[in-house]
Amino acid sequence: MIVMKIHDLAMGPYPARVRIALAEKNMKSRVQFVPVDLLKGEHKTPEFLAKNYSGTLPVLELEDGTFISECTAITQYLDTLDGHPTLTGTTPLEQGLIHMMTKRAELEMLDAISIYFHHATPGLGPDVERYQNKEWGLYQRDKALRGMRYFDTILRTQPFVAGEVFSMADIAVIGGLIFAGYLDVAAPAECDALGAWYDKMQARPSVKNRVTMSDKATA
Amino acid sequence: MIVMKIHDLAMGPYPARVRIALAEKNMKSRVQFVPVDLLKGEHKTPEFLAKNYSGTLPVLELEDGTFISECTAITQYLDTLDGHPTLTGTTPLEQGLIHMMTKRAELEMLDAISIYFHHATPGLGPDVERYQNKEWGLYQRDKALRGMRYFDTILRTQPFVAGEVFSMADIAVIGGLIFAGYLDVAAPAECDALGAWYDKMQARPSVKNRVTMSDKATA
Repeated sequence: MIVMKIHDLAMGPYPARVRIALAEKNMKSRVQFVPVDLLKGEHKTPEFLAKNYSGTLPVLELEDGTFISECTAITQYLDTLDGHPTLTGTTPLEQGLIHMMTKRAELEMLDAISIYFHHATPGLGPDVERYQNKEWGLYQRDKALRGMRYFDTILRTQPFVAGEVFSMADIAVIGGLIFAGYLDVAAPAECDALGAWYDKMQARPSVKNRVTMSDKATA
Repeated sequence: MIVMKIHDLAMGPYPARVRIALAEKNMKSRVQFVPVDLLKGEHKTPEFLAKNYSGTLPVLELEDGTFISECTAITQYLDTLDGHPTLTGTTPLEQGLIHMMTKRAELEMLDAISIYFHHATPGLGPDVERYQNKEWGLYQRDKALRGMRYFDTILRTQPFVAGEVFSMADIAVIGGLIFAGYLDVAAPAECDALGAWYDKMQARPSVKNRVTMSDKATA
């Protein structure tokens, strides 16, 4: 009863966000993964851009051919599908704070790391990275390090990024730290609370098994 | 019975998004506006950064002192407060598509215009714009122009940005075009559908009266 496709890359930090959400929602068996070859620039081909104008992964494809891109939007969809949201909040206040902290995690860390990768490192290689602005990339790396300090401060006084419960906002910060890990951008040494939280997050089955999820889902 | 504060700037393109949402929800009388002096860099002071780490407008302050920033998060909160969301969708599919198109409007147009303003024009002046990357700013202006063409294409086949009904995604595109208008970044001539849609949007009372809203609300 597979009814949805996820166009993604198993190792990708953004794809990880949706893979973790799927596992948290016990929806792995309803999804088939379709690998996209980033190194060959498959996400910049006209065929892929018709699925997602922004040319980013992951993209959710519904049975009727509707495409939903952007991790936050995909998570919002998946989380509300069973009528019992557990990742995006149930009250207006929870929803507001979770969306705020998710966006903040993107703006201040995950997206900043991504810009660093695509602009100040070889990124996906010269065939894919047609335009690079190294100075901007390095500026964003520094911004991401400041972002890590911010989230560390937050996690000193509350157990999860948006408050008392695990949410989409935690997943976004996890995505940022996965990406930072690939690039050896280490969190500043004083970020104890962030480190302790991340250790706890990595013990969650949804986080631990995200890369191999596709094998299981299609087995 | 004013119970919320909005820290913003009446003319601001991002503040416009929340002002339009407030008017669409008939919530103007419940909000008091607190002006923030961007030209003096008030949004970068420690006092303001304690309200919103990212140093951006607008910020919603609840009666209990909770702060919600990021337009999408604020709109999500305001729209669900009465239990009858009209801007952010009611079904999982509507919610997913509205969040996707809202994010796309930010990424491909509104945020791109904002980066152009802060990096490739004098922006808020030398005291506030401490770091500028002109090349990146100009690159983002071109991205915004491509974004306008994309939304034009979308609006050739459907009446609103996320489908058949007015939503938070329309408001985000309106924010982008307000910002572009200030900077004389005109939509490409061929964008007839975008232009016709924008004319229709500007006729909505929520859009037309957004700047003067504060006088009315606190009168």
